[in-house]
Amino acid sequence: MEPTQKVVPHLQEELEQLKARLLVMGGEAEEQVRLSVQTLVARDHELGQQVVDGDGSINRLHIEIDERCFKLLALHQPVSTDLRVVVSGVKINSDLERVGDFAVNIAEAALRYLNHPSVKPLIDIPRMAEIAKGMLRDALNAYVNHDTVVAQDVLDRDDQLDALKNEVFHELLSLMVEDPERTVPALELILVSRHLERIGDHATNVAEEVIFMASGRDVRHHAQEGIAD
Amino acid sequence: MEPTQKVVPHLQEELEQLKARLLVMGGEAEEQVRLSVQTLVARDHELGQQVVDGDGSINRLHIEIDERCFKLLALHQPVSTDLRVVVSGVKINSDLERVGDFAVNIAEAALRYLNHPSVKPLIDIPRMAEIAKGMLRDALNAYVNHDTVVAQDVLDRDDQLDALKNEVFHELLSLMVEDPERTVPALELILVSRHLERIGDHATNVAEEVIFMASGRDVRHHAQEGIAD
Repeated sequence: MEPTQKVVPHLQEELEQLKARLLVMGGEAEEQVRLSVQTLVARDHELGQQVVDGDGSINRLHIEIDERCFKLLALHQPVSTDLRVVVSGVKINSDLERVGDFAVNIAEAALRYLNHPSVKPLIDIPRMAEIAKGMLRDALNAYVNHDTVVAQDVLDRDDQLDALKNEVFHELLSLMVEDPERTVPALELILVSRHLERIGDHATNVAEEVIFMASGRDVRHHAQEGIAD
Repeated sequence: MEPTQKVVPHLQEELEQLKARLLVMGGEAEEQVRLSVQTLVARDHELGQQVVDGDGSINRLHIEIDERCFKLLALHQPVSTDLRVVVSGVKINSDLERVGDFAVNIAEAALRYLNHPSVKPLIDIPRMAEIAKGMLRDALNAYVNHDTVVAQDVLDRDDQLDALKNEVFHELLSLMVEDPERTVPALELILVSRHLERIGDHATNVAEEVIFMASGRDVRHHAQEGIAD
């Protein structure tokens, strides 16, 4: 089916660079998520503003990596697994950019939340952030190492995130009904938990992509059947 | 920079088929969005269940189109504008699949909403759905026709969607604070409006992709600066 692999100098090197840049972008996205939740926990306005203003670097990486993938396809015309690495790279790049957007959304919700007194001690939301960041990091490492075992483990963790989101939702809902004064800030926390869940969804996308890339097995719409919102 | 275009039979035909399949998928995604909002307006449980159960077709198209893009790259090794059409196709395919997911999320929220009496006449939410569907349809047509004017018009409409989302939010928030009994159903409507806004974001992604594809001008992170959540 596929044309024979041509001897293209530097293709492997270019692929390694693509992976390295995606890891850099993943690290920045993870850090933005961490800081956005830290804004909430430490009630730190300045930090929140820093996250909101700080997505320029991720956006530049998004464009750079997109262009890198395009050039790689145009100049090296990779086939087979190498082609899958690049096409997956295009998609993972979009996922990471969305994670950066969600970190900004979380920081914005956190800044609005800080205009109110605390409605509850924050335990589940930082836990959700830890899980989401871990999923993202592991999914990216699975991509770099073509490791389907790690990717499958990421998929398995998505349920924990969903369960925590549901707990947060029901707890805050009770607070709102009991004390309407707390409706506005409680709503912000619900939004934050949903943004964290979406970050987990993007990590899941990356992990599914890795399994497809490495094994040719398409798990995408099986894994998603379990996702409730 | 790029290797000279080889004479590859059928490449143009394959590209036309790719576009045609993306249009089919876009049509299905749009219909799912329409039905999910109709569930809410007509208070139709059965319809809602139909949407929730009905995303199999979009998911199959997602996988088919992904595979189609991959084969197109592997077999035809397109360059220049043709390559951009395929790489954009990969991304647009992901956007459309997410739109299908949001339609399911809307239908799920609608089904939960129907367990309660109506909290308000629904005017803004159907309007948001109309705008979002129109943006999606036009963005896809812009992709098919390489039409940057239509794509730019899609970008301009995103502000209307944001404004409506904010109106819906503040109106429902007031209802919740006035009458805590209505907190749960009002919250579902807020979630629906956010899902519709996200569908608009995906239409925006497609439109930005078209402008980039057709003109080489990357508008992605300029257009996004105006987006608040």
